[in-house]
Amino acid sequence: MQPRTIAVIGGTGKEGSGLALRWAHAGHRVLIGSRSPERARETAARINTQLTAQRAEGMDNLAAAQGCEIAVLAVPYAAQLDTLAGIKAALAGKILIDVTVPLMPPQVGRVQLPDGGSAVLNAQKLLGDGVRVVSAFQNVSAEHLSIIGHAIDCDVLVCGDDKDARAEAIALAEDAGMRAFHGGPLANSAAAEALTSALITINRHYKIKHSGIRITGLPADADV
Amino acid sequence: MQPRTIAVIGGTGKEGSGLALRWAHAGHRVLIGSRSPERARETAARINTQLTAQRAEGMDNLAAAQGCEIAVLAVPYAAQLDTLAGIKAALAGKILIDVTVPLMPPQVGRVQLPDGGSAVLNAQKLLGDGVRVVSAFQNVSAEHLSIIGHAIDCDVLVCGDDKDARAEAIALAEDAGMRAFHGGPLANSAAAEALTSALITINRHYKIKHSGIRITGLPADADV
Repeated sequence: MQPRTIAVIGGTGKEGSGLALRWAHAGHRVLIGSRSPERARETAARINTQLTAQRAEGMDNLAAAQGCEIAVLAVPYAAQLDTLAGIKAALAGKILIDVTVPLMPPQVGRVQLPDGGSAVLNAQKLLGDGVRVVSAFQNVSAEHLSIIGHAIDCDVLVCGDDKDARAEAIALAEDAGMRAFHGGPLANSAAAEALTSALITINRHYKIKHSGIRITGLPADADV
Repeated sequence: MQPRTIAVIGGTGKEGSGLALRWAHAGHRVLIGSRSPERARETAARINTQLTAQRAEGMDNLAAAQGCEIAVLAVPYAAQLDTLAGIKAALAGKILIDVTVPLMPPQVGRVQLPDGGSAVLNAQKLLGDGVRVVSAFQNVSAEHLSIIGHAIDCDVLVCGDDKDARAEAIALAEDAGMRAFHGGPLANSAAAEALTSALITINRHYKIKHSGIRITGLPADADV
């Protein structure tokens, strides 16, 4: 796809910085957002050093949201709605890809979907119709994202009510080295959000680190 | 595993009769339950003819629940709680494997988890602590179940609060030709229930019939 300017809100965290690295590697311009502009600049500098290219810039979350074409939210669940409230105006007319998983420590291996049915549905409710919210990347290992070229043995379910916004998210997932599927309306984000706790249980029980899912049943030569 | 006597409540439907066929094939005794004992006997006769062995018997749902060691509920969502209310006493002290997916026609491709968070959680609530409820098989193609030997390219998430009951369900899934995983407490059934609507969306969008999921990230020689 054509290069985009992507804000990663919470871009200093493991999941956010891993996605930012891969998108910068794919040629996109990445705005690393953080509550701490200093830490955001550090993360951006690390990415640029690793890529030997100036593709990432660090700034506060609001500036990143203001400067982007597409925003990606990658903050802990407890910070999700407060963070969005602070950047809502800057997201008007844009696409927000929400990576939030409603994990509630200490029982992160137990599905605890919030009232409203899903964390991402609640994000859409807060942002209103002016922002096209899509959900994606909830099940992907942050550790593997952070190693360019490391295979991601996990498919991405992309859920959203807007067809074009879903297509953007699917293309961005592919640019980051993943296979992604149209998983239905935004309400279906509940499946991906809940699945994360099941995968955490599987990691613990089977003593592995990066369980994931693959979608099966596709023709061998499927171009998804 | 040692042969069990398994009641399949709603055993004349596609999913129920497919599971019944595979368990009978694996050497278990299967009690096909239905609101219509006549249709139950027809399904049992078909299974016995196909296997050239007398392993299945047809009867009404209550008789099946009374006669079994382990019960499996495979009725449409709209009939789930009424059916359970009618056999509750007969299930006391037993394991119930609930296959229910809370699909709400016509929007079966949209996740619509019920109040209470999950159909199976509501079953446990109705049945009380005297019945050990486990959830499984929500994502498996009924069509493939009905063909003995047809590979099931879909893993099974087994969720439940009782360890022994989960182990029984995992062993039964393996006897039916599937790979099954401990997916966490009963609350995690929400993941498998919600995933079905995402898979229905994938089937429609990518013009396939039997999408499923595989768990990834296991060691190549994992004995799960």
